[in-house]
Amino acid sequence: MALEQAAELCLNDQGFVWLGLFEPDEDELTDVQDKFGLHDLAVEDAQNFHLRPKIERYEEGSVLFVVLRTAGYVEDREMVDMGEVSVFLSRRFVITVRQGAASNLHGARKRLEERPDLLKEGSAAVLWAILDTIVDNYAPVIEGLEKDVEEVEQTVFSGAAAPTERIYLLRREATDFYRAVHPLLAPLEALERGAYLQLSEELSQFFRDVNDHLKLVNEEVIALRDVLATILQANMAVISNQQNEISVRQNETMKQLTVVATIFLPLTFITGFFGMNFSWLVNDINSFWIFLVYGVGSLVLSAVAIYYWFRRSGDI
Amino acid sequence: MALEQAAELCLNDQGFVWLGLFEPDEDELTDVQDKFGLHDLAVEDAQNFHLRPKIERYEEGSVLFVVLRTAGYVEDREMVDMGEVSVFLSRRFVITVRQGAASNLHGARKRLEERPDLLKEGSAAVLWAILDTIVDNYAPVIEGLEKDVEEVEQTVFSGAAAPTERIYLLRREATDFYRAVHPLLAPLEALERGAYLQLSEELSQFFRDVNDHLKLVNEEVIALRDVLATILQANMAVISNQQNEISVRQNETMKQLTVVATIFLPLTFITGFFGMNFSWLVNDINSFWIFLVYGVGSLVLSAVAIYYWFRRSGDI
Amino acid sequence: MALEQAAELCLNDQGFVWLGLFEPDEDELTDVQDKFGLHDLAVEDAQNFHLRPKIERYEEGSVLFVVLRTAGYVEDREMVDMGEVSVFLSRRFVITVRQGAASNLHGARKRLEERPDLLKEGSAAVLWAILDTIVDNYAPVIEGLEKDVEEVEQTVFSGAAAPTERIYLLRREATDFYRAVHPLLAPLEALERGAYLQLSEELSQFFRDVNDHLKLVNEEVIALRDVLATILQANMAVISNQQNEISVRQNETMKQLTVVATIFLPLTFITGFFGMNFSWLVNDINSFWIFLVYGVGSLVLSAVAIYYWFRRSGDI
Amino acid sequence: MALEQAAELCLNDQGFVWLGLFEPDEDELTDVQDKFGLHDLAVEDAQNFHLRPKIERYEEGSVLFVVLRTAGYVEDREMVDMGEVSVFLSRRFVITVRQGAASNLHGARKRLEERPDLLKEGSAAVLWAILDTIVDNYAPVIEGLEKDVEEVEQTVFSGAAAPTERIYLLRREATDFYRAVHPLLAPLEALERGAYLQLSEELSQFFRDVNDHLKLVNEEVIALRDVLATILQANMAVISNQQNEISVRQNETMKQLTVVATIFLPLTFITGFFGMNFSWLVNDINSFWIFLVYGVGSLVLSAVAIYYWFRRSGDI
Amino acid sequence: MALEQAAELCLNDQGFVWLGLFEPDEDELTDVQDKFGLHDLAVEDAQNFHLRPKIERYEEGSVLFVVLRTAGYVEDREMVDMGEVSVFLSRRFVITVRQGAASNLHGARKRLEERPDLLKEGSAAVLWAILDTIVDNYAPVIEGLEKDVEEVEQTVFSGAAAPTERIYLLRREATDFYRAVHPLLAPLEALERGAYLQLSEELSQFFRDVNDHLKLVNEEVIALRDVLATILQANMAVISNQQNEISVRQNETMKQLTVVATIFLPLTFITGFFGMNFSWLVNDINSFWIFLVYGVGSLVLSAVAIYYWFRRSGDI
Repeated sequence: MALEQAAELCLNDQGFVWLGLFEPDEDELTDVQDKFGLHDLAVEDAQNFHLRPKIERYEEGSVLFVVLRTAGYVEDREMVDMGEVSVFLSRRFVITVRQGAASNLHGARKRLEERPDLLKEGSAAVLWAILDTIVDNYAPVIEGLEKDVEEVEQTVFSGAAAPTERIYLLRREATDFYRAVHPLLAPLEALERGAYLQLSEELSQFFRDVNDHLKLVNEEVIALRDVLATILQANMAVISNQQNEISVRQNETMKQLTVVATIFLPLTFITGFFGMNFSWLVNDINSFWIFLVYGVGSLVLSAVAIYYWFRRSGDI
Repeated sequence: MALEQAAELCLNDQGFVWLGLFEPDEDELTDVQDKFGLHDLAVEDAQNFHLRPKIERYEEGSVLFVVLRTAGYVEDREMVDMGEVSVFLSRRFVITVRQGAASNLHGARKRLEERPDLLKEGSAAVLWAILDTIVDNYAPVIEGLEKDVEEVEQTVFSGAAAPTERIYLLRREATDFYRAVHPLLAPLEALERGAYLQLSEELSQFFRDVNDHLKLVNEEVIALRDVLATILQANMAVISNQQNEISVRQNETMKQLTVVATIFLPLTFITGFFGMNFSWLVNDINSFWIFLVYGVGSLVLSAVAIYYWFRRSGDI
Repeated sequence: MALEQAAELCLNDQGFVWLGLFEPDEDELTDVQDKFGLHDLAVEDAQNFHLRPKIERYEEGSVLFVVLRTAGYVEDREMVDMGEVSVFLSRRFVITVRQGAASNLHGARKRLEERPDLLKEGSAAVLWAILDTIVDNYAPVIEGLEKDVEEVEQTVFSGAAAPTERIYLLRREATDFYRAVHPLLAPLEALERGAYLQLSEELSQFFRDVNDHLKLVNEEVIALRDVLATILQANMAVISNQQNEISVRQNETMKQLTVVATIFLPLTFITGFFGMNFSWLVNDINSFWIFLVYGVGSLVLSAVAIYYWFRRSGDI
Repeated sequence: MALEQAAELCLNDQGFVWLGLFEPDEDELTDVQDKFGLHDLAVEDAQNFHLRPKIERYEEGSVLFVVLRTAGYVEDREMVDMGEVSVFLSRRFVITVRQGAASNLHGARKRLEERPDLLKEGSAAVLWAILDTIVDNYAPVIEGLEKDVEEVEQTVFSGAAAPTERIYLLRREATDFYRAVHPLLAPLEALERGAYLQLSEELSQFFRDVNDHLKLVNEEVIALRDVLATILQANMAVISNQQNEISVRQNETMKQLTVVATIFLPLTFITGFFGMNFSWLVNDINSFWIFLVYGVGSLVLSAVAIYYWFRRSGDI
Repeated sequence: MALEQAAELCLNDQGFVWLGLFEPDEDELTDVQDKFGLHDLAVEDAQNFHLRPKIERYEEGSVLFVVLRTAGYVEDREMVDMGEVSVFLSRRFVITVRQGAASNLHGARKRLEERPDLLKEGSAAVLWAILDTIVDNYAPVIEGLEKDVEEVEQTVFSGAAAPTERIYLLRREATDFYRAVHPLLAPLEALERGAYLQLSEELSQFFRDVNDHLKLVNEEVIALRDVLATILQANMAVISNQQNEISVRQNETMKQLTVVATIFLPLTFITGFFGMNFSWLVNDINSFWIFLVYGVGSLVLSAVAIYYWFRRSGDI
């Protein structure tokens, strides 16, 4: 069986074996553990999502156990898809256990094929290739998030809608992604400095390169979170400003209503007064001059009074 | 009596004794203190809630005193229930003093039974088992809080209600829990490095594993607090947006009122005018054409005027 | 005179003198300074409120100068009352200068009487007793502030009132108190490690105990400030939500007004129309059927029209 | 010429020269530079506002170049006036270049005259005197800002006005002042530890005293900025609360209007109905009982109906 | 060809070559790489925008690779234009690769011509000249941003408009610029200390000068970001305050409407009552006194009643 052959190969003093597993079941993993003598705790972490990148030494430093979180951006759901790659690394073998969708390692294989000189340095080169692949795959995630942020900006400032929920969800995605990136910084720095593995100068430059990319990604996520916090506040300000505009319009409507009522309610009262059926009233207001003076006159007079009142209060 | 036997057993040079106390009264604890020669200050801390996890050395390092805060999530009250476990640890004895409901240590006993190899390493293995049990019990707390946060998110963005108080209380719970977790990070790191106890490489890996879980819990609480701060702001934005919607609807109502008043108040004034009982007026407006021109005409004219006024101001 | 005796006693090689001063005037302090050879700068700091806790070495480390800020909670004014205790400490003397109301040191004396074993260690034990007393007195301050915060929470979420000013003032008190506590952390840590004084293991454990309490107080103040910042935001959300409720009620009132006006203004216009005194009109509308068709009919017709209009716009 | 004499004096092996310049022009400064052999870069920094406090060593440590930012509080403009003092310090000379209004050094001279013992220690004592003077002059700035903050507090919580602009400007002043204070902390700490100059124990205590004052000022500015951030939020809450009070009052007005309209519009319609001039109607409603039943009755009936409607909807 | 000559010159043991490239295509760069033996990873970084300043050592420290981000302020678009300069530096050559518009290095050449003494120190002087030029060019960016902030302040507090979008965009620019400046601090500090290159004391003072400018720029960007965050909040407060003013005005309008309606609707009802055509009514109200008592009296009575009602409710 292939697994046994691989384990045997490891006993020879030449080269190393790279064994790749994708979401293995418990039996499969136990089998590998027995063959290669992996530590219980490391195997436990490899079996499930561990949710935290780390680098650990086992067997007095002869085996390195690395957990990396992979990320892919899913355009249509505006989500960051997380996966995990666990790596067991010794001079004789590299065992990778992948969990989740975004954990593809084709890129790592290709990188090594392009650089046979690095491959000569042994299994550490494989670790570099894996790290480089995974960290490079962080870039499109940042881009996807940035594109969404730009869309959100436009929505906010066009005033078309208040995309509060979308801003919030993007913030959550950015925070989750930050948690995949940030805890890797310190161990990768240590790795570059040779704290975990003896590295040739050449290879350590390649690890430094990965570290450099990771730092950039880290700074970009931090900037993204900052931008999203700011846009949430800007969103509030835009909403409040719209509120003011609505209120100003409402004020206009209210003013029109008030003007109409202030003009016509008094006038209508006067016409009502002279429309009362008191005989005395009806009989006494019978000449043209009385109509002109009392009827038309009182209407004109109150119209003038209303006009001056409006004028004083600044409404006209 | 059992306590004396235990104390005697400790004088022999083989193995160690694990003594478990649950909310002991003062006499009980004083008794244990006398038998095992524990330090006053440590016993004082064990007796009451100390509210802060810590690891301390007594008797020139031969006795370790550890305070741990336990946590359990109470679903129906949406609260984190806190307890405490104080551990006195020497080569010869492990004394655990438990306070509060969430401080169960069955898990620790079970862990040790499953790993007889660790138990051989002596009392330090018990400390590991206790730490591992308590830190593992933090996971359901995080899950409980995360579930609540998701419910709160849905409430906020459905617009059904503004769950400000619930968000606030969740934030408080998260902050309290953070205070149970965070101060433990540094001493546990020191413990893993062997600053307090001489650890075999095997056992130190198990302590590293606990430390790793604690770091994950710590990062998750930090993320939770960040999310809750963000959702409080999102909540504000949603409330303000609803305010705008209410105002827009109010504007509609107001406009309708204004339209009706602007049409009918002037027309009613005109009918009032021609309803006045001035004889001259009544007698002079007696032909059909006068009715048509003055009566209907003036109404139509003012209706047309109103129509154009609305049109100019953009209301129709 | 007592002061001279005390100074003389210090010259003997046995024991030490503890001299306690409360808000001494300049002459008194100069007198003490001369007798015990204290440094100008330290005496200056002791004389006034220095507003910052610190530990300093003078005379090549043979004299330690400690400034501590004391705190008491004044229930009825919801304020933290601050005082200061300055300590001059050498192998031969302890001079304490107290400033302000909350600087009582009876507790320190009592502590030492209860632990004659510590007193044997010399003047350092007095420093411990003073520190322990002062730090223990921080606990009721935290409790007082926490009780106020709980009251504020209830006020905010009951919606009875918006206690913005109270939240703000509590935040200020918490910030002031934080400034009394936080700068003491580093020097106390150094003191525990023996950087300022040679301490026996026993005594250093007691200093560690004080340090541990101080750390707890520090964490509690930080949590309090965080809670108060959050409650200020929650307060805003509750106010905005009330605004929405008020607007909804206003909308109801507005709608009722609009309905009434929309129904009766047109109907009243119609009655006005048929109330005009045009003879042609009055003479022509004389049969019962005309009344029924024109008078009642037009009213019913417009009532029906209004009804359908409301129905269409969803108001009924 | 005085300058040449001063330069000559420096060549003797006794004492040192203190040369004070106030906003010198380029020629003057070049002259001094030539005479005392100052470094180009340092002279450049002294010539203009450098905006950042710092301590630098030149000539293998034999010349110290210190830039300090001075601050004075201008009451009537509520502004912090910034100046700068650059100090060139060697064993033989002290050259101070002052820029801006708040850079007075009389206090430094007076301090040295009061302490001839320190002056014996050479030019380092002058540096102490300058630092002490400048840092002491920070205290009134803090006081001025704190007084303004208290005024702002009162304005905010009295509700008289929303002093948003004033809060904002105070925040800017506090931030600017913080930038003058904070970067000086680290070099002053190093200076106290003797990293730049060999200091006698006595003198180093005086530098420690300055450092201590600077730390206090730094903590006070940080607290001020925090308070100003909080008051900006409290200001928002107070404004929003006023908004609610305005809305409640508006609601009252609206309700009154609605009640009046709901009562009188229907009643007026009824009177209008019986005021129509249909002959049939006019002729048929001629008896007292008809008036009582139809006229008064219908009015009373609708009044009662309106009353019950209000009652049901809770308005009365 | 020039390139070959340059490469040859480098083999001699005297002086060094400075080769400047502007946005070279891949072939050009590969050519240079071959001639000068540059490392793959460094060349890759030079070819594209790397977005992160850094200093790296290659070839066991004999080649230094420096990436710097250049910045220019574009007034009319209110944007910071970013470019990049990559520098390969050995004892024998300096190769600069420029990307983007703001990456001009004329200033560096001029600086070196002015200081032939530094040029004698070799290629490190060129690195200083480049760093100094780029960091000096940061100053106008800060100035440009500060000018915009001042304009925004005026807009906000004049209340003319709510420039939320502009504040937001300025914040983004400040954040982007911060990312160009901040990561350079640590490597430049190391460079000054001689961690990357052996520097003469003279030259290291010039590097310290650059570092000092960079620190100032860094502090200024941090202050700018803080100011922009504060102004976004102040903007909110100003908007909310305007909302209150609008509401107060609306309240005035509403009150006027209510007053008019409350006065005239009841009066008009009364005139309507006496305008009804009930014969009994018409026939009975025929004397002058009846008119005066019933007609005028009831109007005056209800006017008085309304007057007292307003008075009680505080509207007049």
